[in-house]
Amino acid sequence: MTIRLYNAKILSVEEMRISEGELWIEDNKISYIGDRKDSDCTFDREIDIRGNLLMPSFKNAHSHSAMTFLRSYADDLPLQEWLFQKVFPQEAKLNGDRIYKFTRLAILEYLTSGITSVFDMYFYADDYYSACVDSGFRSVMCGGICGDDKAQDLEDRFVKFNRLDPIVSYKLGIHSEYLCPLPLIKDVAALAEKYKAPVYMHNSETQREVDECIGRYGKTPTEVLYDNGIFEYGGGGFHCNFLSDRDFEIFKEKGLWAVTNPSSNLKLASGIAPICRMLGENVNLAIGTDGAASNNCLDMFREMFLVTALQKYATGDAAACPAGDVLKMAVSGGAKAMGLYDCDDLKVGKIADIIEIDLSQPNMQPLHNIVKNVVYSGSKQNVKMTVCNGKILYRDGEFFIGEAPEKIYEQANAAVRELLSE
Amino acid sequence: MTIRLYNAKILSVEEMRISEGELWIEDNKISYIGDRKDSDCTFDREIDIRGNLLMPSFKNAHSHSAMTFLRSYADDLPLQEWLFQKVFPQEAKLNGDRIYKFTRLAILEYLTSGITSVFDMYFYADDYYSACVDSGFRSVMCGGICGDDKAQDLEDRFVKFNRLDPIVSYKLGIHSEYLCPLPLIKDVAALAEKYKAPVYMHNSETQREVDECIGRYGKTPTEVLYDNGIFEYGGGGFHCNFLSDRDFEIFKEKGLWAVTNPSSNLKLASGIAPICRMLGENVNLAIGTDGAASNNCLDMFREMFLVTALQKYATGDAAACPAGDVLKMAVSGGAKAMGLYDCDDLKVGKIADIIEIDLSQPNMQPLHNIVKNVVYSGSKQNVKMTVCNGKILYRDGEFFIGEAPEKIYEQANAAVRELLSE
Repeated sequence: MTIRLYNAKILSVEEMRISEGELWIEDNKISYIGDRKDSDCTFDREIDIRGNLLMPSFKNAHSHSAMTFLRSYADDLPLQEWLFQKVFPQEAKLNGDRIYKFTRLAILEYLTSGITSVFDMYFYADDYYSACVDSGFRSVMCGGICGDDKAQDLEDRFVKFNRLDPIVSYKLGIHSEYLCPLPLIKDVAALAEKYKAPVYMHNSETQREVDECIGRYGKTPTEVLYDNGIFEYGGGGFHCNFLSDRDFEIFKEKGLWAVTNPSSNLKLASGIAPICRMLGENVNLAIGTDGAASNNCLDMFREMFLVTALQKYATGDAAACPAGDVLKMAVSGGAKAMGLYDCDDLKVGKIADIIEIDLSQPNMQPLHNIVKNVVYSGSKQNVKMTVCNGKILYRDGEFFIGEAPEKIYEQANAAVRELLSE
Repeated sequence: MTIRLYNAKILSVEEMRISEGELWIEDNKISYIGDRKDSDCTFDREIDIRGNLLMPSFKNAHSHSAMTFLRSYADDLPLQEWLFQKVFPQEAKLNGDRIYKFTRLAILEYLTSGITSVFDMYFYADDYYSACVDSGFRSVMCGGICGDDKAQDLEDRFVKFNRLDPIVSYKLGIHSEYLCPLPLIKDVAALAEKYKAPVYMHNSETQREVDECIGRYGKTPTEVLYDNGIFEYGGGGFHCNFLSDRDFEIFKEKGLWAVTNPSSNLKLASGIAPICRMLGENVNLAIGTDGAASNNCLDMFREMFLVTALQKYATGDAAACPAGDVLKMAVSGGAKAMGLYDCDDLKVGKIADIIEIDLSQPNMQPLHNIVKNVVYSGSKQNVKMTVCNGKILYRDGEFFIGEAPEKIYEQANAAVRELLSE
């Protein structure tokens, strides 16, 4: 399949440079970026981009996709009540079939927000895998073992899902320090060593989590994990709102990724991550939406605005955390955080994970600065097309993921009704 | 003109109740809400709403519409540099023609966000008025005199613009305490007395503003204005981030409206308004976007999410500031704040200022709680139709405001280029 996208503005996020011209896709790769070119090639499809912006798609570096089933189910509650009385009892009723349906719903939403890959930690890996592959949607699964889980199961999944369709891969991960007994942490560290692989987890989301860890071990979650060898081959943490000076040293020494989730952290009253300090000390940064039960939407535009606006507020400096840095976090940062080194930017040879931003919308006018328009004014409404792995999965409000959205809604709602009635 | 909207979910925001059925519009009023009804009437237009949500439109209770011309022109700068080196010098080059063009651009954006009225403080009232009337867009203009301005000019505009097309009205207003010498404040208070009219202004946006006022007068801005008679017939303040106990007493005694602008306040590092305390003490609340130079987009969905999420964060309580309260602020609160008592809800006899929210989008699924979906997950992408004063001004991405959006963009961009080159 060859596609020619012409008459476009083309943004390289790493170079933070916009050129004008056209971009060709051959199979799942970008085969040409440059001036308008008359070619002998015939294309399967040619699309006039009409001066709109082509940019690398967003990479959602932390989510629990199937939690769409709890969207607007239990908001406006104190955190403990929300988690223990609402979320956990319903999650206990999940099964593979439900995970499949709720994940399909999440994928629709990701596509409307220009997101083509998600770093997902949740249950029923086989069904999650199928939902992604059936949709043609890229994902990196993240282990989330905890409690009585066995490291062997994590290893089995790690081996299995890194050998199937390359549109899905799998990273070692634990839920968090606070849900993992020390022997399990050590077992996962042994896996990291065996496979020379990075490890990821929720880390330092709330002050209470950090305080309780210090109460248990006399050190922070990051230190506990580091001291037990979890980070020998890198990895990262989701949230990272409360990091000590020593934690910062560890993040820098090991090149760890801090994945920030500002909507979720505000809405659950957790905190604001020290993004400016991280930027200043060159900590690797990416952005995630977290799950729909806490956020409640899966929208990178909202997250990008919050990343920068909250830093301006928290530091008292309107110049803090400029737009270009935020866009890199949402695109190439996210890609690298989850090990996707070949779909992090628009370059010849890279995988074609591309979005078209509709500049013919009032919130994108005037055209002083397109990058700032995207970060400060952008919304889902501006996503005109989402291309994942060289295939158009969403364009002009229509989805092309092998199933009609109405059917996915119907199935998700039916599954929700059934689950809640049990 | 008669329009029948059938097959709808219909939300009364004041009752916080959703019914199913149909809604009729006759001229600019709602003439029927109820069950599906076979009628002898013939309608000029009948629209199948397909189970989507009809709700009263959003009311943007504070903006400077024509500031669209500075969107993404000067972000990521310290506040003083932004204001004095970037905003003020460019604003000095505005003229009536430019205000008209930049306002038309803002109106397009309001419509995409389901906003049908804006409480606007800016320059060149005649041209602003024309932009609104030509677009069929409702607006309440707010006086913003300051410095050497004369109260007589304010009075002239107040009288003039309350006698023309009723789609635009005019409220007494001053820019702020800090830009108004005391004699001018007293003159405006005399106008409030003469017309038994409320007065509005920017108030307590930054701590510095409050501190400097205390330095000048030994009291807060709210106290200075109150003590000089500005609030004898009510009114309100924009921002209101830093109110003292005494200020709270004044707001309650006079029934003043606090209009919160969370995106702008974060992005300019100003602060977070004490919305939870205001809710608890029954201070009247509304929401505004502020202008596009500071926000940078004119989107009520972003503001609504921030109003609640920032309160949850600031109070440390995930239960704070529930969704229903926020929706009321954005709809009926905003309407009442600007004196629009007849387009604040969906009721027979009210003016038809209505939006259709597309529930067939992934971010609105599943349908646990539609109000929470709108507040926590909603985006411009969900606005399928915007009806102002009984007329459809926006539907399915198309605008019907008497001018093609491409022309408005072209004219706005040309005016920006010309202005910046002077």
